[in-house]
Amino acid sequence: MEPIEHHGRHFQEELEQLKTRLLEMGGLAEEQVRVAVKALTDRDRDLVDFVLQGDEPINTLHIELDSRCFMLLALHQPMAVDLRAIVSAVKINTDLERVGDLAINIAEAARRYVALAPVKKLIDIPRMATIAQSMLRDALDAFVRRDMELAQRVLNEDDKLDALKTQIFRELLTYMLQDPATIEPALDLILISRHLERIGDHATNIAEDVIFMVSARDVRHHADERLPHSL
Amino acid sequence: MEPIEHHGRHFQEELEQLKTRLLEMGGLAEEQVRVAVKALTDRDRDLVDFVLQGDEPINTLHIELDSRCFMLLALHQPMAVDLRAIVSAVKINTDLERVGDLAINIAEAARRYVALAPVKKLIDIPRMATIAQSMLRDALDAFVRRDMELAQRVLNEDDKLDALKTQIFRELLTYMLQDPATIEPALDLILISRHLERIGDHATNIAEDVIFMVSARDVRHHADERLPHSL
Repeated sequence: MEPIEHHGRHFQEELEQLKTRLLEMGGLAEEQVRVAVKALTDRDRDLVDFVLQGDEPINTLHIELDSRCFMLLALHQPMAVDLRAIVSAVKINTDLERVGDLAINIAEAARRYVALAPVKKLIDIPRMATIAQSMLRDALDAFVRRDMELAQRVLNEDDKLDALKTQIFRELLTYMLQDPATIEPALDLILISRHLERIGDHATNIAEDVIFMVSARDVRHHADERLPHSL
Repeated sequence: MEPIEHHGRHFQEELEQLKTRLLEMGGLAEEQVRVAVKALTDRDRDLVDFVLQGDEPINTLHIELDSRCFMLLALHQPMAVDLRAIVSAVKINTDLERVGDLAINIAEAARRYVALAPVKKLIDIPRMATIAQSMLRDALDAFVRRDMELAQRVLNEDDKLDALKTQIFRELLTYMLQDPATIEPALDLILISRHLERIGDHATNIAEDVIFMVSARDVRHHADERLPHSL
């Protein structure tokens, strides 16, 4: 049942290319997030526009990667860990594309934010961005290196993002209650903190996929048993 | 290269079962959304708790469906439209699980909302919920029936959700600016409207997958040409 090319050189080369392109896409998505948050903190409208116009490469890669995954599945019919790697790549591709969308959402909120008086000096939002970006990078590294331990570390980081999001919300609510002029800009900061939290969620998804890929163990929903049909 | 079982009875039966279970999961997710919004509009704490405790069946189905997809890919090595159907099922499974999570998020916001004085009579939020639910149902029907036209109609509905979300935001902002006592509950309504918008986004993802599955044409990112490697 196992086709001859399965562990062949050609298949492994294609798989390596897929990983390289996925890392490239991850790099682009992470950069979009970094620049969107820099546009916000620097109150730089040119940078906002730069992000808003910069989603094309990610969208092109998204389509290319989906297509590569299909080709690998159709032509090589991989089994076990290779099959899981490719299905994981399909999912990760979707996650990274959403991260790109979230960078756009951050830039849109930043555009509105910089048009009004600033609410406060931004400290926690850049901190959230740094954590989310490094979660994303680590999750992709974990995928490429099939590194369960690193994937597990990504899962542990998510609590920090949640805590910061809650802290940001409480602080901004105080501002809003004290001064109605802060309501509109504070709303945008709250939305941005939620976008960053979701970027962390996507990194978490990727890390969970890595653990599933390497171990065939599903760590989602605290399922700590092997799958009934594990391959 | 095409295994003998590919169009065999067993494979088609398994594929039918997969679709049935996916519809079941869609039904559960849609019901969670419906009840979460009902809990909000009826200000019913018991219903809130019902939703918060009701995600287990969806999470169990999520793992089961992933496992079914892997089995189908590994044992039957499907080609062309069947391969695309199964990879689509993997993605749809993820989308539906997120819809379940969003229903939980709505219920959490509803719990906070009903603890405070209501901001206004809720009309647009239930309207958004109705649209999002029917988008979800139609997208899944389109998947099962491989109905491109219905999938296209789902894509067209998304603008209505966006318009309602913007309208809700503007209206609530006015309330918040006029009366600080409305700030906290209004924030939760804004978040709920965003959760509903995201449910519509997931329905949109599913509809796009259907179009890709049926036509091997990628309608995302306005890519209106055939894939370079279309199968």
